[in-house]
Amino acid sequence: MTVLVVGSVALDSVETPFGKADEVLGGSATFFSASASHLTPVQLVGVVGHDYPMDRLRALADRGVDLAGLQRDEGLSFRWRGRYRHDLNAAETLETHLGVFSHFRPQIPEQFRSAPFVFLANIDPRLQLDVLSQVDRPQLVACDTMNFWIESRRPELLQLLERVDLITLNDAEARQLTEQSNLVRAARWIMDRGPSHVIIKKGEHGAFMFTRESIFFAPAYPLESVFDPTGAGDSFAGGFMGYLARTGDLGEENLRRAVVFGSAMGSFAVEKFSIDRLLELDAGMIQRRVQEFRRLVAFDVEMADVEQPA
Amino acid sequence: MTVLVVGSVALDSVETPFGKADEVLGGSATFFSASASHLTPVQLVGVVGHDYPMDRLRALADRGVDLAGLQRDEGLSFRWRGRYRHDLNAAETLETHLGVFSHFRPQIPEQFRSAPFVFLANIDPRLQLDVLSQVDRPQLVACDTMNFWIESRRPELLQLLERVDLITLNDAEARQLTEQSNLVRAARWIMDRGPSHVIIKKGEHGAFMFTRESIFFAPAYPLESVFDPTGAGDSFAGGFMGYLARTGDLGEENLRRAVVFGSAMGSFAVEKFSIDRLLELDAGMIQRRVQEFRRLVAFDVEMADVEQPA
Repeated sequence: MTVLVVGSVALDSVETPFGKADEVLGGSATFFSASASHLTPVQLVGVVGHDYPMDRLRALADRGVDLAGLQRDEGLSFRWRGRYRHDLNAAETLETHLGVFSHFRPQIPEQFRSAPFVFLANIDPRLQLDVLSQVDRPQLVACDTMNFWIESRRPELLQLLERVDLITLNDAEARQLTEQSNLVRAARWIMDRGPSHVIIKKGEHGAFMFTRESIFFAPAYPLESVFDPTGAGDSFAGGFMGYLARTGDLGEENLRRAVVFGSAMGSFAVEKFSIDRLLELDAGMIQRRVQEFRRLVAFDVEMADVEQPA
Repeated sequence: MTVLVVGSVALDSVETPFGKADEVLGGSATFFSASASHLTPVQLVGVVGHDYPMDRLRALADRGVDLAGLQRDEGLSFRWRGRYRHDLNAAETLETHLGVFSHFRPQIPEQFRSAPFVFLANIDPRLQLDVLSQVDRPQLVACDTMNFWIESRRPELLQLLERVDLITLNDAEARQLTEQSNLVRAARWIMDRGPSHVIIKKGEHGAFMFTRESIFFAPAYPLESVFDPTGAGDSFAGGFMGYLARTGDLGEENLRRAVVFGSAMGSFAVEKFSIDRLLELDAGMIQRRVQEFRRLVAFDVEMADVEQPA
């Protein structure tokens, strides 16, 4: 089944301890699409300026990403410049030029409105709500957000929570939104306001998926070299939603598998700049990484072992 | 089989956001013993001053901890006073009085020398080496260490590494010892110097066990309230070594189970001050927690799911 993503399409300039990239493909919808497209057809809604290198998006179109919802407006494209030092969990933003993104008003093409899976990437909650007014009844709506919106658009974000099935956010954002330092409590606070599922991402420390009945944890893959963490979260979301859309199964066990696919795609994304690594993948590589995740946490306990501690 | 632990027996005074405890049982050997004794017989070697409340150690003796190696010297007992603020991963030391611990010279009683499992808790590496010269050929020797020894006793610590099978240390210590910020590389650096197994503890973010062939990861249990993190690492080590000694199986699969038992015991330890929670446990409670760990990371992937991504 198809997944619709609404988010940013940007040009990133990134410095990490390992290298430097200038004006490469970036943005939440870009990473999401490059990731999800390995699993299911993707429909992208976003905006770029007249200066965007459209030919470079061909790689996404070739992967089955439908770009009919990518508006091209007068003005400059969204540009982000950032740096990571030794702590690869923390990006330092050097420059942000929103350009056409500052007037973004998502218009969902007619043929996208029946998408059964919808991902509202990190944009203004007012726009996220607006997207929901334009789509038919999706089977699952998930959203992301960030500290900026938690601070400046709290009422709208709370309204949004009532209307989504799932939210992905990082641990710092979960704590900021809920004012709970404990993540179990933070997740419950969010679920009390709407979503039946909360995914809290902890970067190199893995991700939790909370439901009202259970907690699932998937570690981040212990890579020997993390090259550029930009886009890891959106690639995670792409793998997660892509797997759900591919399988169409919203049962707990399948959601757990989807988290692992998300973690696998996130672990690939950070191995190169931009979406470069995601574009190189094939089915076998994804399959092997997922199996490595399984082996990473595999253990079995025989009941006899614990029945009678000495 | 029996596990021998050599380490500190102290009096802790701790403040956390949730309460305060004065002069309660503490020290690495104390937490280790309280934890391991649920799984296997324990022999403890340590030192206390003439002022130590010996009657309070009865709880350990009652659990099968052999205190024949606990020296009682003239002078004051080791006291530690610390505080945790909101970041429960970071203890702030307010006072340390080493007392008799500053002249500790471990003497392994004759009947302890053939212990098949030996844990050298966090003490001066010179003493850890000295203990090894007093014991027969154990099946497995593991050690812990800390930033202070990494800085002040580096040559002796490197000597020790050549003589242990396994080391447990936290992520900051692993980075400090190896000067590698990446934990996969840090673990390899350590294994190149002796140990076949390296366990890197990340506090609330779980623990990795590295071998030359594989990586295993166990999350920390997502507790709703962490009361006092003191002793979590030593309780982990106690559960880990206790399980190995109980089963006597040093195969990879059993080592993974041991890590989970360690994580379970660590997760109990932080639920109350001192060893209070560890003393309350019974076999059923440990068994349930281990099963909860299994459920926390459980997922299965059907091959068909990944064979042909779209």
